[in-house]
Amino acid sequence: MKIAVDAMGGDYAPEEIVKGALMASEKSPDLQLILVGSKEKMQPFLTNSLPQNLSFYEATEVIAMDEHPANAVRKKKDASIVVATRLVKQGEADAVVSAGSTGAQMAAALLGLGRIKGIERPAIVTVLPTPEGGKLILDVGANMDATPEQLCQYGQMGSIYAGKILGIANPRVGLLNVGSEEGKGNELTQKAYPLLKASPVNFIGNVEGRDVPQGKADVIVCDGFAGNILLKMAEGLAGVLFQQIKEKITSNTVRRLGALAVKPGLKEIAQMMDYAEYGGAPLLGVNGISIICHGSSKAKAIFNGIRVAGECVQVRLIEQIREDLPK
Amino acid sequence: MKIAVDAMGGDYAPEEIVKGALMASEKSPDLQLILVGSKEKMQPFLTNSLPQNLSFYEATEVIAMDEHPANAVRKKKDASIVVATRLVKQGEADAVVSAGSTGAQMAAALLGLGRIKGIERPAIVTVLPTPEGGKLILDVGANMDATPEQLCQYGQMGSIYAGKILGIANPRVGLLNVGSEEGKGNELTQKAYPLLKASPVNFIGNVEGRDVPQGKADVIVCDGFAGNILLKMAEGLAGVLFQQIKEKITSNTVRRLGALAVKPGLKEIAQMMDYAEYGGAPLLGVNGISIICHGSSKAKAIFNGIRVAGECVQVRLIEQIREDLPK
Repeated sequence: MKIAVDAMGGDYAPEEIVKGALMASEKSPDLQLILVGSKEKMQPFLTNSLPQNLSFYEATEVIAMDEHPANAVRKKKDASIVVATRLVKQGEADAVVSAGSTGAQMAAALLGLGRIKGIERPAIVTVLPTPEGGKLILDVGANMDATPEQLCQYGQMGSIYAGKILGIANPRVGLLNVGSEEGKGNELTQKAYPLLKASPVNFIGNVEGRDVPQGKADVIVCDGFAGNILLKMAEGLAGVLFQQIKEKITSNTVRRLGALAVKPGLKEIAQMMDYAEYGGAPLLGVNGISIICHGSSKAKAIFNGIRVAGECVQVRLIEQIREDLPK
Repeated sequence: MKIAVDAMGGDYAPEEIVKGALMASEKSPDLQLILVGSKEKMQPFLTNSLPQNLSFYEATEVIAMDEHPANAVRKKKDASIVVATRLVKQGEADAVVSAGSTGAQMAAALLGLGRIKGIERPAIVTVLPTPEGGKLILDVGANMDATPEQLCQYGQMGSIYAGKILGIANPRVGLLNVGSEEGKGNELTQKAYPLLKASPVNFIGNVEGRDVPQGKADVIVCDGFAGNILLKMAEGLAGVLFQQIKEKITSNTVRRLGALAVKPGLKEIAQMMDYAEYGGAPLLGVNGISIICHGSSKAKAIFNGIRVAGECVQVRLIEQIREDLPK
């Protein structure tokens, strides 16, 4: 199995990407890893003796976070994410993993791999850590103005992914909404509800914002606008709260002593909330496996992103979606 | 100044409502408080000698949280929220305060008081506590499918409220969106951006989900769907995190001792995050002051809700909105 890794994408590229790939090549000798990018720039982070299952593929350009995704993908034919995606298209790799610009990764996948037949719009999935385990949210930003039919497809694709990759039996699919009763919501969710109800997924109805961190549903379906707002609010609030805790429990000597004692407990929570454990998630609906990692991914997240890529290939995720979706 | 208080609305009604009103009547002798509801049901929570500035107005019915708001308001003419709103309409009270069904309060206000001329749709405001102080979010649930023009009006009304009641000079108004650049977002936010930019408010552009808890904007403008999701996610996540902290820092003897030392610090954070400090916020855009308190309000929140009502009357909020909005 061959995984192309975009070595140049992400806040900590290429260093942490290279380190993550080295970890993966060591722990999974059966994986063939292809680091795509400038080998010269990766050089400082490479070990003297390189593992046999690690190779390089030169790409001279990089797409920055602030570039217009589709334009950049069309213009920079030799950008790392474009080249890595092309390797998948040409059958030289089974999956691509990137922590670079999500928009560029999506544009490269849409232009390079295309959509799975029958899927109207792909969705960006994210795994939200909760005390009840990782929960899927989709879409979190691919498609700002989704249709009810598209939300229904998200539910079906998310259900397959939660079952096959997260190992959740009969995943509970919930529609993100403002109230629990059928009929609540905006025009979009009011129309999506009956479609999800009639679909083959285990639809548990509406879930409200407060139900999400409580893990009430395994798969949370929403349009890219609401999903993005939800996800970033969660990241921002967790950050603010942990920062406040850090300050307030060390503001005098007594508290600092107490902080030493409770620190392992707080660390357990930070670990539980750590998205890096989940690595990344695929762009669901494109005709090939393209794993999106968080922009601030460090080695561990990349390592897990590569692991997820391998699992997606192993369970034949694309074929599963193709087979399970209504023709 | 006379404030009608819906004694029967809220998770802890009538007990905590009565207690909050008693607190307010004591601390603000210049306020005339009218407790609206069943005096018989309030009786157990009343003190032997009642303050002179507290009176009662009988209302025999109550609208429950799960009733259809508009239908219930039309049918139950003697419901506490309907009667209390009518007192405002008839000039017998200057404002109404309620912790009951938000939908019913809105329906009662729309039917009883009507909209301010020129305002297309009223908005429910909430004050989100952040380390940088309370920040306004509107709308959080009155209007699920808002238009760009309506979002622009929210910005203007929110700006007036933040200035006059929260005391923020030249409040920074942000548009809730998925990215910071102009042109980002769904159709709604793409069209609302130039309107807000051209409006007289201090528009700082788009704010992302993560910017909200960091207090980057003083007034966050969004449709009722996104605002509701955002707000409930924040409540749910904060609840889950504090629950986790409580468990993890007391899971063994060493940690329990440490927890004793850091507890005052955590309490400071809980206080900072306590919406009860802000009491409530008005339904902005209706032709009279109707303060919406959180459903789970206890005495302190009701006390502060009454305080906010008094402040809104004092600064002539309705007249301010009428004057400042473009005709």
